[in-house]
Amino acid sequence: MLVVMQAHATEEQVRGVCAKIESLGYRPHAMPGAQRTAIGITGNRGEVEAAWLEDMPGVAEVIAVSKPYKLVSREIKEENTVIRFRGETADLAASIGGRELAIMAGPCAIEDPEQAFAVAETVSRAGVRFFRGGAYKPRTSPYSFQGLGVEGLKIMAEVRRQFGMKIVTEAIDNESLDLVEEYADVIQIGARNMQNFSLLKRAGRASKPVLLKRGMSATLEEFLMAAEYIMSEGNYQVILCERGVRTFADHTRNTLDLSVVPAVQRLSHLPIVVDPSHGTGKRNKVTPLSRAAVAVGADGLLIEVHNNPDRALSDGMQSLYPEQFVSLMEAIRQIAPVVCREVPPAHGGAHSAAAGARSQPAHAD
Amino acid sequence: MLVVMQAHATEEQVRGVCAKIESLGYRPHAMPGAQRTAIGITGNRGEVEAAWLEDMPGVAEVIAVSKPYKLVSREIKEENTVIRFRGETADLAASIGGRELAIMAGPCAIEDPEQAFAVAETVSRAGVRFFRGGAYKPRTSPYSFQGLGVEGLKIMAEVRRQFGMKIVTEAIDNESLDLVEEYADVIQIGARNMQNFSLLKRAGRASKPVLLKRGMSATLEEFLMAAEYIMSEGNYQVILCERGVRTFADHTRNTLDLSVVPAVQRLSHLPIVVDPSHGTGKRNKVTPLSRAAVAVGADGLLIEVHNNPDRALSDGMQSLYPEQFVSLMEAIRQIAPVVCREVPPAHGGAHSAAAGARSQPAHAD
Amino acid sequence: MLVVMQAHATEEQVRGVCAKIESLGYRPHAMPGAQRTAIGITGNRGEVEAAWLEDMPGVAEVIAVSKPYKLVSREIKEENTVIRFRGETADLAASIGGRELAIMAGPCAIEDPEQAFAVAETVSRAGVRFFRGGAYKPRTSPYSFQGLGVEGLKIMAEVRRQFGMKIVTEAIDNESLDLVEEYADVIQIGARNMQNFSLLKRAGRASKPVLLKRGMSATLEEFLMAAEYIMSEGNYQVILCERGVRTFADHTRNTLDLSVVPAVQRLSHLPIVVDPSHGTGKRNKVTPLSRAAVAVGADGLLIEVHNNPDRALSDGMQSLYPEQFVSLMEAIRQIAPVVCREVPPAHGGAHSAAAGARSQPAHAD
Amino acid sequence: MLVVMQAHATEEQVRGVCAKIESLGYRPHAMPGAQRTAIGITGNRGEVEAAWLEDMPGVAEVIAVSKPYKLVSREIKEENTVIRFRGETADLAASIGGRELAIMAGPCAIEDPEQAFAVAETVSRAGVRFFRGGAYKPRTSPYSFQGLGVEGLKIMAEVRRQFGMKIVTEAIDNESLDLVEEYADVIQIGARNMQNFSLLKRAGRASKPVLLKRGMSATLEEFLMAAEYIMSEGNYQVILCERGVRTFADHTRNTLDLSVVPAVQRLSHLPIVVDPSHGTGKRNKVTPLSRAAVAVGADGLLIEVHNNPDRALSDGMQSLYPEQFVSLMEAIRQIAPVVCREVPPAHGGAHSAAAGARSQPAHAD
Repeated sequence: MLVVMQAHATEEQVRGVCAKIESLGYRPHAMPGAQRTAIGITGNRGEVEAAWLEDMPGVAEVIAVSKPYKLVSREIKEENTVIRFRGETADLAASIGGRELAIMAGPCAIEDPEQAFAVAETVSRAGVRFFRGGAYKPRTSPYSFQGLGVEGLKIMAEVRRQFGMKIVTEAIDNESLDLVEEYADVIQIGARNMQNFSLLKRAGRASKPVLLKRGMSATLEEFLMAAEYIMSEGNYQVILCERGVRTFADHTRNTLDLSVVPAVQRLSHLPIVVDPSHGTGKRNKVTPLSRAAVAVGADGLLIEVHNNPDRALSDGMQSLYPEQFVSLMEAIRQIAPVVCREVPPAHGGAHSAAAGARSQPAHAD
Repeated sequence: MLVVMQAHATEEQVRGVCAKIESLGYRPHAMPGAQRTAIGITGNRGEVEAAWLEDMPGVAEVIAVSKPYKLVSREIKEENTVIRFRGETADLAASIGGRELAIMAGPCAIEDPEQAFAVAETVSRAGVRFFRGGAYKPRTSPYSFQGLGVEGLKIMAEVRRQFGMKIVTEAIDNESLDLVEEYADVIQIGARNMQNFSLLKRAGRASKPVLLKRGMSATLEEFLMAAEYIMSEGNYQVILCERGVRTFADHTRNTLDLSVVPAVQRLSHLPIVVDPSHGTGKRNKVTPLSRAAVAVGADGLLIEVHNNPDRALSDGMQSLYPEQFVSLMEAIRQIAPVVCREVPPAHGGAHSAAAGARSQPAHAD
Repeated sequence: MLVVMQAHATEEQVRGVCAKIESLGYRPHAMPGAQRTAIGITGNRGEVEAAWLEDMPGVAEVIAVSKPYKLVSREIKEENTVIRFRGETADLAASIGGRELAIMAGPCAIEDPEQAFAVAETVSRAGVRFFRGGAYKPRTSPYSFQGLGVEGLKIMAEVRRQFGMKIVTEAIDNESLDLVEEYADVIQIGARNMQNFSLLKRAGRASKPVLLKRGMSATLEEFLMAAEYIMSEGNYQVILCERGVRTFADHTRNTLDLSVVPAVQRLSHLPIVVDPSHGTGKRNKVTPLSRAAVAVGADGLLIEVHNNPDRALSDGMQSLYPEQFVSLMEAIRQIAPVVCREVPPAHGGAHSAAAGARSQPAHAD
Repeated sequence: MLVVMQAHATEEQVRGVCAKIESLGYRPHAMPGAQRTAIGITGNRGEVEAAWLEDMPGVAEVIAVSKPYKLVSREIKEENTVIRFRGETADLAASIGGRELAIMAGPCAIEDPEQAFAVAETVSRAGVRFFRGGAYKPRTSPYSFQGLGVEGLKIMAEVRRQFGMKIVTEAIDNESLDLVEEYADVIQIGARNMQNFSLLKRAGRASKPVLLKRGMSATLEEFLMAAEYIMSEGNYQVILCERGVRTFADHTRNTLDLSVVPAVQRLSHLPIVVDPSHGTGKRNKVTPLSRAAVAVGADGLLIEVHNNPDRALSDGMQSLYPEQFVSLMEAIRQIAPVVCREVPPAHGGAHSAAAGARSQPAHAD
């Protein structure tokens, strides 16, 4: 159920409707838009009696939502969601879902400060605003390297301080989510946890945006419903991420499903980025599929880069060499305008101005 | 790495080797077998120096394990694992992996005591020793019925008291696992959590057996590695469960992969059961696929039964009517001998002797 | 569109309706049943005017068919189709779809007379009534052994003469279909040709029954529509065959989808058999999956047996050793009664009575 | 086995080696390259004795081919294959695999001359050099529209005469292939026939290039082996086409696997084009996936365009409106330079100069 407010409805009227919804025992989710505010209702079993709401001041109409997902739907919010991050200086601000493509790059796993800083230097110079790296690694084998944990988070926080990049890193359970929320700027939920509903709910109570990866065999509806879990707890800053699905095809580790990008954009207002590194599992496929992801209209990319891929502790086979990454950035810089996007410019090294930079809490709009 | 003890090695010698392994900074896993004890070693990165161990008293040989999984492998334990449950009286004992098929039956979700007892009555009379029911339901939508939680667990504990059946129920996070461990006999980990490694580790520290469902698109190796996560923490009582995989086929909700049963049995000593209810998602397919699962050699079945499927709060479409379940039991009772198995006999109602029965902690052998 | 005749309608009335349908420019397909005859109508674009037919003598009603397939549907023919083959002597008769399971066994490819006769001797003694072997092999590589062609057909014809078994063999194009129709008793269409519609139409004009294998990624509807292609040309003797579908799973060559058996039986009157040899691609999986296929309710099995699998020119890895096949027959002989079926008895060697036996043209009922 | 000739080897030496190969009972396939000629050998079972060939005049070395496919492999031909088509005038020439992207556009099925000419007018003006349309349609149902047959071919021949575009159309069996070879410029083999080996061999003896679509669940190796079937018969003008594979995903009709484009280009010298119309099955996905296909590096596109998609006799849902197609061409014209390609310019209508134009037989290089 969705309450659409009139174009000229006041904030007080919006608050009044929300209070009424609460008094009925449900949960209101106000979604301000450019033209009007819509208020989603969750927590109801079955139909909400529309009559209680449609005569309230400022209400334009009360409509049923036709999809199983509500808050992720374009029915409730027509404009794209843009997630914004402040920076110490204007040129350190960043966003996901806006005109500028959100390029998130870094090593699969943080191994030590030297590796992290070497990669950060490379990707920052190339124009990247989001540094991604793993501190908690979900590994198929209990005997594989599982990440540095909080040490890794601290190294990434230092990367942010020195380079002004926002930090994107994965949380694998409630404990790590607490720490990731504290140290990072974007909380990643991995493909294997896409239907770990308990973790999704915890992420829905976090104060930072959540990057949600598609499960290995998730349908579009399941993917959107997983985002709905996060939003239903009150965190509306969700970024979706396509990272390949599992099929019979054996020439890549997964089959990257780029058609999900326009499919998501049709149904949802949330931004969607693409991870061609996991999506293909092979270094020589990352650049062509990155070009394709930008051309298909994705809001950004998640790319693994390593200063020494041949010695990487995890997923070295799919990590780009630094010079390959620089070329990739050049290629997508040329494609972006065709889809009305742009890529931040490359520049000559670590921002001295950025020393001490610390990104502010993000907010969605 | 695997230390094989001599046939006549003493318990003291086994303890000595375990202590040595610990002193080297690794973790020993002693696996007694009919002929000999084997001791698995985990916690090592790379090779363990065999020379430190192979000259110790009682050691027959030190061998490398050729598979990525160690503790689940038949290399480390040749005999089938049988998980045994004591009962108040001898005829209330039960086992999984032995000659008797382990039939686990009950409603998808526990809805209220009346429903639970009605179904329990039906399945107990039909010879069932394991009552399965959901108290914590992982649902695709945050707005769907999520289970009764601890109330559901208490209802099932009462079912156990009255009928003497062991309780199998799902845990979805650390909090629910604590409670399931307290109230139930077997802790179920669902398909969506098969690679929730944090939860697997917690289950590996539990005192009760764990029933691990195959993920929707898990390969055999990933399935076995998930079991390895549990065992690597010290809980060797793991039951695997095939519940269908996701494919293009649309005549069933999932595609039940019965070939995984002999495939698991070839590689691992762990028991494997089959869930034709989730595996097909359609009531009229449950009985034929149950017959097939027994014929293929599965160690048991997980079957959804409801006293009133048309009104079930979840998965009613795939729940059997009571009389269908009784017929199913008759059918598999005839097939079981062909694969050297048997099905417990049907009897005339709730055990009066069973009133007050409480199963003892399980132990694996 | 389907014309249902009255229970007491005469043959003349049936012929009258068929003539009327033809005069309207369509094609009638009379399907006699135990209770009544139904007449399917194909060749129409859009609706047929029911009024032209429903007042004709003997017509009970004219009803629309709700499925895209018509002639394969249970709507048009409620009773199971049983395909019968006469033999020189009564005990050499055979059938597919009746009480007796149709076991089809033999080598993947006919290599030479010695091999064919050695395998035929084994399977005939074990009670098999259908000898299967490949003369035309569709191979992934143009450089692999493609079969003996007509020489292989002649060897199989000689097997029939000596052992009285019916011959099942694959045709791969119109040319080979002409020859298979001449020499064999059942024309097999392979999985790769399931949607070779031109070949299906040719098979639909053949005088022998057609065994149609499911395509590697065919949905149930596509599978039935392929059978419809054959039936729409007038050949109503179609046997369906599940042989595994392609999925991500890598522990078997294909994933055998046994749930398709009850799914087909619900929608169609056609018999369905299962091929666990191609369905698993691994010798050690063939016996357990054969047991499962019988238990699930299949009408028969297609099994690869070789007298010397290690030297087979194709698919040796999945061929049973003779003694394994004999054990398999024993196992399914025990399971069959549970599903109201039986397996022909084993006997002590080639029928001397069968010398010179030649099966008569098949007919469906 | 592959004979690599010296850089300065004469044509006579090449002929000599071919003759020697034939005299040994094998088949030679000379593949001239920019630097050197290589001669593939097929028809051998097992190893060819290298000693017979390596001492012949002009031979540089004799090497084993490490892949199951030979003639399609880059091992035998390092340079990309470019297939060229002559035109009456220079600007009517066309190519596949060269710098210019090969855009093939037109209706799914040819319905009548008016429709064909209306669509041809649209796509020709937009710069298209290849007109695609179906005269023989492989349809899932025997009761669906199967195409106009030879009438459709004649309409397309007239399109070629008037607009100078080359004609691409599907053959579904030997009979239709004879006609397509006569009337069209490129013979298309559909996904359902990708392993119809009999048809592939017939196409391998055709005088026109063959566009081979990937089967719905074909692995990369099976796809290349299907091309090898064609080439092994002597037709080296093969164009591969990705058209989506079958997966669990249900938001598109198929899952377009763009990663197969760089995967093919790594292993094979053959050109590969992409069909986003069948690959997605939805009109609103065609343009974004077309952009992505160009960006990933495909050699061309196959696009369905209809002047009146809502009334199309087949696949109207996935056909673009004329104005959508014009926009698509503009978009890819901007992306092409990023991957060192170009798209032919749009122009103002049918070439009057093209009246009477007739493309010459194609040749590969």
